[in-house]
Amino acid sequence: MTKAFQDYYPENLSHCYGCGANNQQGHQLKSYWHKTANSTEQTIARFTPKPYHTAVPKFVYGGLLASLIDCHGTASAAAISYKRAKRSMGSEPAFRFVTAALNINYLAPTPMGVELTLIGSFSEVTDKKVIVNVEVLAQDKICVKGQVVAVKMPDTMA
Amino acid sequence: MTKAFQDYYPENLSHCYGCGANNQQGHQLKSYWHKTANSTEQTIARFTPKPYHTAVPKFVYGGLLASLIDCHGTASAAAISYKRAKRSMGSEPAFRFVTAALNINYLAPTPMGVELTLIGSFSEVTDKKVIVNVEVLAQDKICVKGQVVAVKMPDTMA
Repeated sequence: MTKAFQDYYPENLSHCYGCGANNQQGHQLKSYWHKTANSTEQTIARFTPKPYHTAVPKFVYGGLLASLIDCHGTASAAAISYKRAKRSMGSEPAFRFVTAALNINYLAPTPMGVELTLIGSFSEVTDKKVIVNVEVLAQDKICVKGQVVAVKMPDTMA
Repeated sequence: MTKAFQDYYPENLSHCYGCGANNQQGHQLKSYWHKTANSTEQTIARFTPKPYHTAVPKFVYGGLLASLIDCHGTASAAAISYKRAKRSMGSEPAFRFVTAALNINYLAPTPMGVELTLIGSFSEVTDKKVIVNVEVLAQDKICVKGQVVAVKMPDTMA
């Protein structure tokens, strides 16, 4: 089974509420490379909200969607950084990003009860900053678009 | 005791994961008018993250902060709409807003273990749209700034 990007995070950086394997109360989002027909660099994550993740009945809470976009974005930023550096994921020192800015547009209400797909793509990749564009789809309809400006985790946080 | 903005939401609109009184698993954020020296229209909410709401150890998860800003923003949008309409909160028909766009800037890591304060102010108030600017403070330091573009809930959602 393919390991998720988050499964390569060092143990001390695996406590994130959104995607940390060590956070039992968290969402444990898992992000992967997305194999596309034209070989563009895309990432993918899937998540089915819990019944209590509602905004109003029948629709998913926007704060959860922002959270998923955030974690998929920072994980994708780490993955593309390893790839551009031609290093295997998990090799030291770890690439680990935090979010400097998160911009979300809610295009349509996101329905409950279906698996959501997050697709990430990259509009900027430098040593210090990666911009990841994320679309959230429910049954092939784009419900939310987000942009994550991910920056290298400052030493003060690690 | 003063009722929070969210306590005036109709029962069927009180299931929000971020602030619904009827969502037992949710954050149950509570927003209020903030009394300021110069009588500017501001709103306030306070929230202490749970120990598992971490990004990396010692710092608060950005997705949670986005969620809190979102809910404080839409609640503040409802409150200012009642105020401008000179109607008491809770009177029918209810003003209820959803988020069209959420833009967050993480200025500094937000420390765990302290109560956070959210302060909302308004840069646009019309019948259909309210723009709320929210600052998140930890021990009087602004850690996060967010903007919520709140629009009237479409009939299809209610």
